[in-house]
Order: sequence, then structure tokens, then C-alpha cells
Amino acid sequence: MTWKEPEKWQNMISGNDCPMCQDIHLETNEHSFLITELKQSFVRLPKNQYWPGWVAVFLKRHANELFELDQNELSEFWQDVSKTAQAVQKVFSPVKINYAIYGNLCPHLHCHIFPQQIKNDPHTPIKSDAEEVFLSDEVYDDIIKKIKKAL
Amino acid sequence: MTWKEPEKWQNMISGNDCPMCQDIHLETNEHSFLITELKQSFVRLPKNQYWPGWVAVFLKRHANELFELDQNELSEFWQDVSKTAQAVQKVFSPVKINYAIYGNLCPHLHCHIFPQQIKNDPHTPIKSDAEEVFLSDEVYDDIIKKIKKAL
Repeated sequence: MTWKEPEKWQNMISGNDCPMCQDIHLETNEHSFLITELKQSFVRLPKNQYWPGWVAVFLKRHANELFELDQNELSEFWQDVSKTAQAVQKVFSPVKINYAIYGNLCPHLHCHIFPQQIKNDPHTPIKSDAEEVFLSDEVYDDIIKKIKKAL
Repeated sequence: MTWKEPEKWQNMISGNDCPMCQDIHLETNEHSFLITELKQSFVRLPKNQYWPGWVAVFLKRHANELFELDQNELSEFWQDVSKTAQAVQKVFSPVKINYAIYGNLCPHLHCHIFPQQIKNDPHTPIKSDAEEVFLSDEVYDDIIKKIKKAL
């Protein structure tokens, strides 16, 4: 679902029919595993690890754009993202971290954290779902434990 | 310049040889025009408006990652980005805003603001320099005035 279906898009924007509101707090949902809960957010590990170390931070409450948050929410949300990025830095040792808020498929505020490694092409924007790479339960557990420990 | 040249990359990371530190405060630099100065940042309009309404918010001081900022800097930087995004919303009326911090060519913290319009493809990541579209001085001035007024 995207803005190409304006009526459904408006329902998602309003929060009345937002799939992320339904499942971002769950231990496991269709797309990801819960790593931890922070002040304003749920930190999750996408099952698709095509981009190794990809983590996403979801605002707990429904909002579409940064300017819908009050000053305290905005400040605490970015403390959560910053703290998570630092944990990703410790675990994956990237040369740079990329941070992205899109919401083009679901307009519920969430920030992707993508570690960039020296082998990666710095000129090409990351398409996190360009391919699908799934890991074993043991490997997911290991990544989750390492990020939790680093947080 | 990218992380593919590790020695030069380290010089940029350290802030000793960061091109953005040299020119993000200027009225006009090679790539962009100054729109305004906010608490922690300079808000700039890229000359390349291939992506209409593309605006970028540059941290005044040198830093590479969000977790290098103290709590107050982080909070005020995101207030600046949020305020700028709201101005972009007023001027360009997008269906969604995309926010991105890369720094893959220059590791000095800056956040891109990309307004998404209904005609855009929601599945394709934005490559802001995919093409070059330059405008007349009058059109740049008009955009800058409108964003300043909306801020």
C-alpha cells in the first residue's frame, strides 16, 4: 500500500488503519523481531538481512512526520535512534552509518539504520528489499543479543 | 571522496579536512544556497533541483554520527530539521516527506529533506544526483523566499 491509493493512504495517515500500530510491539511480526523497547520507540531487527546489520527504530505512537511530535517526543525519539546507531556501530564496525525515514509504504514514523562497510558502493542509495536474505534462528538470536548488550 | 580512500576519509572524519566545514555557512557555495541559519544548523537549497523541493540541513559544527552529539545538540538539531520539513510541507504540499542522513561522500552530519509527490514511485530510493536540473536565479530566489516565510 502506498499513496497511489489515496483513500487507503489517508486511512493509514490518520492512524485508523495503520498496520505498524498493530504489530511493532510484538516479539515477532511478519517482517521483524523485537530487539528492545526504548523511551519513545521499539527497536527491531528486520528478518530480511539482505543489508547486514539493518535495524529499524519505530515510534511507539502513530505519527507520520517529525513535525507532528512535540519537543520532548522528538528529542527522546532521536536519543533512541542515536543510542541504537551507537550499538550498531559497536556490533558491525561500519565505516559510516546511514539513517533514513521514508514511510513510503506505511506512513508511521520509523528510522532505518544501515551500516555501510568499506566494500559497499557509496554512490548507490540503499534499497533494503532489493533482495531477500533470511538467516537461521540462531544467527538472529546472536545479533539481537549482541545489539542488546551494546545498548 | 569516499571511504574507498581510507587515509583521506580519516582526515574528513576527524574534521581536519572537511569541505563542508569550509563552506556550509556561505551565502552561495559550489553546490547550494543558504536559506537560513537555525539553532544548530544551516539550512540550504541545493542548486541541483532534479528532485524538486530538495533541501538539506547541515550541523554547524563537525560531527560524523548522531551519537557524537550531546543531548542538547541532538535535540536542537532535530528541532531544526523538523521545522524545516514543516516549511517544505507548506511550500511543496508533498504526500510524504523522506529524511535521509548519508554522509557517504562527506562525513559531516547533514539531513536531506525530499518531498514525495503522488506521481513519484514509492518503491525506488531517491538518488538526488541521478540527473542535474538547474533553475534560473529568479526561481531559486522565489523558493528560498517561500521557505524562509514558511519557517
